[in-house]
Amino acid sequence: MRTLGIDPGLATLGWGVVETHGDAATLLGCGVIRTAAHTPLPARLLQIHTALGAVLEHHQPDAAAIEELFFGKNSTTAMAVGQARGVALLVLAQAGLAVAEYKPTVVKQAVAGDGGADKRQMQSMVRMTLRLAAAPTPDDAADAVAVALCHGYTAPFVRQVALGRADR
Amino acid sequence: MRTLGIDPGLATLGWGVVETHGDAATLLGCGVIRTAAHTPLPARLLQIHTALGAVLEHHQPDAAAIEELFFGKNSTTAMAVGQARGVALLVLAQAGLAVAEYKPTVVKQAVAGDGGADKRQMQSMVRMTLRLAAAPTPDDAADAVAVALCHGYTAPFVRQVALGRADR
Repeated sequence: MRTLGIDPGLATLGWGVVETHGDAATLLGCGVIRTAAHTPLPARLLQIHTALGAVLEHHQPDAAAIEELFFGKNSTTAMAVGQARGVALLVLAQAGLAVAEYKPTVVKQAVAGDGGADKRQMQSMVRMTLRLAAAPTPDDAADAVAVALCHGYTAPFVRQVALGRADR
Repeated sequence: MRTLGIDPGLATLGWGVVETHGDAATLLGCGVIRTAAHTPLPARLLQIHTALGAVLEHHQPDAAAIEELFFGKNSTTAMAVGQARGVALLVLAQAGLAVAEYKPTVVKQAVAGDGGADKRQMQSMVRMTLRLAAAPTPDDAADAVAVALCHGYTAPFVRQVALGRADR
């Protein structure tokens, strides 16, 4: 299974594509899509749409996964990230991909065997699991690789992980 | 000038198209795009993208306006609405439209002459301005018409109203 993981953001959106066969996992590619603060918001969203579409075109994933985000009381940041996340989910829907959503603790449990793993532990486990010389950088790309790995490990064993809860 | 106004939302997105020539304004169409809570989120965003694209195709606006939204401490709602708003802004960018953003008080001032106008006053002014038998319904459509009217009245007198602030 070839999974595209996404760590959504407006200024920096992380992505990673992982191929899994049972316990074996290979990193096919990862990176970030950056948009500049001085660019008008609609143009930034268009840049994300185009760049993420190019990633899909190049890597042809057959599954997609995204991390569930919480912003506490920061509704301004939630709105900004939500706009980028909406565009990312649209790209996946346009490609006909089902999208799974995972809580951060679930990603940590699946990748590091510990739902309370810290950032360094996660980077170390991602590096070892994928037999890389160094953990993927920047952090947003590493986070996206982790959620892709989580899905690659988890999806074969669950009946239904499709995202479809937000009722607003 | 033909302006498309948008009141963004995931379950209900309001839209309205208004033609303005100086003080004269005509309503060309308005409505809402609804998506069902039981539909997976990516599919709901795809529905919004498709339906709003059809509105643009049909009405061929040459400007677009959207209301600035505040959610206080409700980051969960901000995230949900943000996702729909991001897709709406993407549709406008894909159509090559500049997008203006207005605070609710500015919309009220422009349409009702009172930045503190309540919902009933706003509906009444929208109805009279556009010489309608009744105010547009539902509320989300009426709100979208109001922001379109605001832009139609305001844009000719300001040098720069383009949206481009969110730096996150």
